[in-house]
Amino acid sequence: VAPPRAGPGQWMHREIHEQPQAVARLCDGEWPAIAALGRRLRRTPPDLVVLAARGTSDNAALYGRYLIETLWGIPVSLAAPSVLTVYGARLRLRRALVIGLSQSGASPDIVEFITTARARGARTVAVTNHGGSPLAAAAHDTLLLRTGPERSVAATKTYTAQLVTLSLLVSEAVGARRLLEGHRQLPTLMGRALAVEDRVRDVARRWRRIDECLVTSRGYNYATALETALKLKETCYLVAEPISAADLLHGPIAVVERGFPVLLLAPPGRMLPHLAALASRLARQRARTVVVSSDRAVLRHAGVPVGMPDAPDERLSPHVYVLPMQLLAYHLSRARGHDPDRPRGLRKITRAR
Amino acid sequence: VAPPRAGPGQWMHREIHEQPQAVARLCDGEWPAIAALGRRLRRTPPDLVVLAARGTSDNAALYGRYLIETLWGIPVSLAAPSVLTVYGARLRLRRALVIGLSQSGASPDIVEFITTARARGARTVAVTNHGGSPLAAAAHDTLLLRTGPERSVAATKTYTAQLVTLSLLVSEAVGARRLLEGHRQLPTLMGRALAVEDRVRDVARRWRRIDECLVTSRGYNYATALETALKLKETCYLVAEPISAADLLHGPIAVVERGFPVLLLAPPGRMLPHLAALASRLARQRARTVVVSSDRAVLRHAGVPVGMPDAPDERLSPHVYVLPMQLLAYHLSRARGHDPDRPRGLRKITRAR
Repeated sequence: VAPPRAGPGQWMHREIHEQPQAVARLCDGEWPAIAALGRRLRRTPPDLVVLAARGTSDNAALYGRYLIETLWGIPVSLAAPSVLTVYGARLRLRRALVIGLSQSGASPDIVEFITTARARGARTVAVTNHGGSPLAAAAHDTLLLRTGPERSVAATKTYTAQLVTLSLLVSEAVGARRLLEGHRQLPTLMGRALAVEDRVRDVARRWRRIDECLVTSRGYNYATALETALKLKETCYLVAEPISAADLLHGPIAVVERGFPVLLLAPPGRMLPHLAALASRLARQRARTVVVSSDRAVLRHAGVPVGMPDAPDERLSPHVYVLPMQLLAYHLSRARGHDPDRPRGLRKITRAR
Repeated sequence: VAPPRAGPGQWMHREIHEQPQAVARLCDGEWPAIAALGRRLRRTPPDLVVLAARGTSDNAALYGRYLIETLWGIPVSLAAPSVLTVYGARLRLRRALVIGLSQSGASPDIVEFITTARARGARTVAVTNHGGSPLAAAAHDTLLLRTGPERSVAATKTYTAQLVTLSLLVSEAVGARRLLEGHRQLPTLMGRALAVEDRVRDVARRWRRIDECLVTSRGYNYATALETALKLKETCYLVAEPISAADLLHGPIAVVERGFPVLLLAPPGRMLPHLAALASRLARQRARTVVVSSDRAVLRHAGVPVGMPDAPDERLSPHVYVLPMQLLAYHLSRARGHDPDRPRGLRKITRAR
């Protein structure tokens, strides 16, 4: 790949915009392997799914947790790797499906977790961008993200590829035809979501001097809130606190002061009434809100509305709603004089811990 | 109970100091019920344990997760209540033990989670301070915290009572005699841990003008780091970011600047070598560290060492190590001119969400 035009953060910017094509390529190339694994899981479903990941991949795992429990009805445990890797637990995983997610496939404790889980009788799957990686070698099955190399240290296209892999796999495992069909619209919808870039650049300009903000949503998009906060922390060095709308309404809402920056992700679906109530409350307290939604009623409560294309289904909305948030991290990082491609204190591969 | 001598935060201060007696009372009064349930679980162990909680109770649940997986070998899922309460998932919980933790027993979504889990065939247990609460009514079995009323909005004694209930229950379920015996030393150890109050008051004085800090540990005491950060946020309105030592060493360590405040909880045990490496690294970068430990070598790396009594076992150290952190939240809140008994934006009972 030729390098993008010079300038700070150009890899991140390019990779954000590559996502519609990356998802199309993933669906073209990897769907057969995902469908084959999904069919096997339909015949012999596990009693438990364990998802093991770190950082951005752990946010994708959290999305997977909501989808697997809601659609498939199988309980999910988000792994605490040190239980196996430091404390040497003899965890009973005989009827478990254990999925390790790692862009590089080289995160040592995720590799060790998969190796140990396999030795304890679990069926293991690696989800990674690197077919020759230690993670792929450790697992029974490997699903490839097929995004091409990710050059930016801040992960973007591998995150959405992980979401797509998980939603395709679970949809295949339960035979959810309409949801499977919904995936075909994703490249178009993601392209439309990227078209809000001017609005997002405007938010970045207005927010360039903030020190802190809240990022909130609930349900499927709680993962999007966590991933948005992580990207803002990594690339903008600002205190971006992710909080579930349920926890925010319970406590801290009362201390959200006039002018306090809040990002609210509110796609249509089962969670919308809860999120609309929060948007209305934040408007009354005159918080400085940016609301991301395709719902006109909820957008009316926004300080700055970011209008989104209609997602085919709430369960696929995280794939689309994270895109303007990645763009916000990029533009805010630039507006604050940083290079989003080279965050201080981050290395691309998770090393020995 | 007679009110404590007047002044801001006196309920919180009194309840922190009540903990040795509260734990002794819990062991005297509730051990037989816990042992009976533990024996039944030993005869017919579940395939999965699900822990459902919010806020401080969710931090106790995280401790429970490490203990159950490591000692009992049964996988744990920390519940996302909305999967059942909003999305209406048909979660397969037939062979699951589902434990709901709530001080008040009145948190609506935890009550609904337990009710639904029971209808789906799970064995359900309530851990609460209120035997007449909706949570106790919803569950098959109830374990009482027996702390007496908690008047301070910031929970302290109910947190340690939840830790003790979980560690007794799991120790009984696996027949871990030495660990059971270790509980008898807890009131004495907790009393000794409270004796560090002068040192903690000194830290509060030095830190009274900070805007942010990191709180870190790993393994069993990752829960202590989360609970410490929550208490500091609730009572001091400062940006206290909890982070696992693994994640800190991977990324943000490089941006910890000279003078940046970091709290490190480093009890002896399996995790100590990892935590000692972190303490040494933080010292080299001249972070402003407070290290809480009974290990002399690791305390030598501290800006301010907080020397702790020897815990009987790493698995019971969270019960002891949280005490100086509660005292720190109290004294720092006072030093900053707040009333820790009446945090802005917090209500005692988790209401409808």
